[in-house]
Amino acid sequence: MFENKDQDKTALQQLGEFGLIDHLTKNFSIKQKSTLKGIGDDAAVFDFKNKKVLISTDQLIEGIHFDLSYMPLKHLGYKAAVVNISDICAMNGVATQIMVSLAVSNRFPLEALEEFYAGIELACKIYKVDLVGGDTTSSEKGMYISITAIGTSNEEAIVYRSGAKPNDLLVVSGDLGGAYMGLQVLQREKEVFKVNPDNQPDLTPYSYIVERQLKPEARTDIVKLLKDLKVRPTAMIDISDGLSSEILHLCNKSEVGCHLYEEKIPLDPTVITACEEFNLDSTLVALSGGEDYELLFTIDQKEFPKIKGNPNLTVVGHLTDMDQGAHLISRNNTKIPLTAQGWNSFN
Amino acid sequence: MFENKDQDKTALQQLGEFGLIDHLTKNFSIKQKSTLKGIGDDAAVFDFKNKKVLISTDQLIEGIHFDLSYMPLKHLGYKAAVVNISDICAMNGVATQIMVSLAVSNRFPLEALEEFYAGIELACKIYKVDLVGGDTTSSEKGMYISITAIGTSNEEAIVYRSGAKPNDLLVVSGDLGGAYMGLQVLQREKEVFKVNPDNQPDLTPYSYIVERQLKPEARTDIVKLLKDLKVRPTAMIDISDGLSSEILHLCNKSEVGCHLYEEKIPLDPTVITACEEFNLDSTLVALSGGEDYELLFTIDQKEFPKIKGNPNLTVVGHLTDMDQGAHLISRNNTKIPLTAQGWNSFN
Repeated sequence: MFENKDQDKTALQQLGEFGLIDHLTKNFSIKQKSTLKGIGDDAAVFDFKNKKVLISTDQLIEGIHFDLSYMPLKHLGYKAAVVNISDICAMNGVATQIMVSLAVSNRFPLEALEEFYAGIELACKIYKVDLVGGDTTSSEKGMYISITAIGTSNEEAIVYRSGAKPNDLLVVSGDLGGAYMGLQVLQREKEVFKVNPDNQPDLTPYSYIVERQLKPEARTDIVKLLKDLKVRPTAMIDISDGLSSEILHLCNKSEVGCHLYEEKIPLDPTVITACEEFNLDSTLVALSGGEDYELLFTIDQKEFPKIKGNPNLTVVGHLTDMDQGAHLISRNNTKIPLTAQGWNSFN
Repeated sequence: MFENKDQDKTALQQLGEFGLIDHLTKNFSIKQKSTLKGIGDDAAVFDFKNKKVLISTDQLIEGIHFDLSYMPLKHLGYKAAVVNISDICAMNGVATQIMVSLAVSNRFPLEALEEFYAGIELACKIYKVDLVGGDTTSSEKGMYISITAIGTSNEEAIVYRSGAKPNDLLVVSGDLGGAYMGLQVLQREKEVFKVNPDNQPDLTPYSYIVERQLKPEARTDIVKLLKDLKVRPTAMIDISDGLSSEILHLCNKSEVGCHLYEEKIPLDPTVITACEEFNLDSTLVALSGGEDYELLFTIDQKEFPKIKGNPNLTVVGHLTDMDQGAHLISRNNTKIPLTAQGWNSFN
């Protein structure tokens, strides 16, 4: 996890702004037919033919969204790409290109940016997206990442947050709370490291949740699965801020209420064990811990047979009329109003 | 120029991240037919029909690209939009949408962001672009702006940096060096203000160059003019870093050399006067001072009659074979190699 600080480092000034961009992006190739021109002009140029175009942008900021004392730069580059690709998935689209803008202070040597771009490159390879542009500049302090993801879809396939109807089923992919518990483990190890820098942490028991935090994946496989199953969700959103907050967005945009069943929320056994160890309520962690990048979507009840028993998908509740509000139905059958306790960077 | 610090201010925490976005963007409307869905979902959705799509992204960072002690936030918002729209102009395209990402520390109250978005809104109105998304989050220190501009063009109209040929004419729009000299004036007034805060600067004699710095415009009018004149440039770039640096980019991508004539470089009289006052060489200011956002382009010689005498356009030189290199031909007929002394954020 910890960098070797002894190797020779190259100051960014030695390359200059344009030399730096050329150096960092020289290994990237263009694979998408829709990319007519990638890096190297005033704008990238695309031919999306008759497809509809999806564009999303997101920031990751040092000290707010990540801590480089436990986030390796290659993982950070990978994660920055993935969280934006996830937004395209949430529209039921296919990501095709990304742009990466980066601002770093002079404490970052060239080798650090090479690591970051190695992560971007890996994500581009795995998710089959082209890096088509961006901007690299200096900051007074810290590292600022801004990514724009571009994708396409046929018009009839696009799923908005606003299409859900009362009685639709509420479905989540994968399991929840892992990324948040991984963060708890990493933060604890950071505190241990501060006291005893020679202590090498054994993260083996936590490998699943630590990986959920450091190397999340975008559920492009779920978008494909839904297409193969011929299920078109009525509404969809990705779970970046916690289940509770995302359900409220979806209910708000669709003008519906919902019943979310506590007992149905999918949790990995590692998450449950870690919650016990940290004395945290696993339901609260799933509701309010963010960064799982699973998909939350709604389907018409008549589609249920198509997804029934699929190990990747869990029905966690159903929608109601808006005037009934959004509620968690607890294990002891208490109705608790859902509140957006998801992550808010301004608090 | 200086804000009234006494008015009541609203802390960003009071609204939270989503309340903040809703509040700041509630006045924006969608005017472009190609925008199917703007702000409010995981991604914006577009239908560009048979047009080719242009996307560009750029960052503006406090302490590196701007100084809030003399840059009013409304101007900053306007400029942030304009410099990105300028990139679309440089492809000979028409900007249609922008996305604005912002990270600010808690020293910024809501009213500051309202000012910034008022500038964005004005630019959207004047340049007929839709605000279609973005991201607003907190930073540990300072203000970080990242803008993505989206535009369209017919394939045959798109102009790259790479299409110039030997003997093509080198043309610039408007005049150069104003933005840089405006910055010199503002930085001088800042030093005066530090010594004597009661001194109210009289910027009237410098209004043209100060406006070039604080409120630049994207040359959408030149893109339209070229279309009306039926002139398709062979290559084009916008002048953000200084004439010298942009000529070298263009020569490099087009694999040509050039002769740039010092006596032809268009300078406003205010720039010449300010250069004398600051004891700066006006040619060097035009070559290396950035942020004018004029267009630099090349045309086939046979197109010359179409642009001859146009007050918006100046032929400043011509292209040569690559092996002849890129040179400035000085007023006393000396041949001086052009070097990229343009602005580099890492120096």
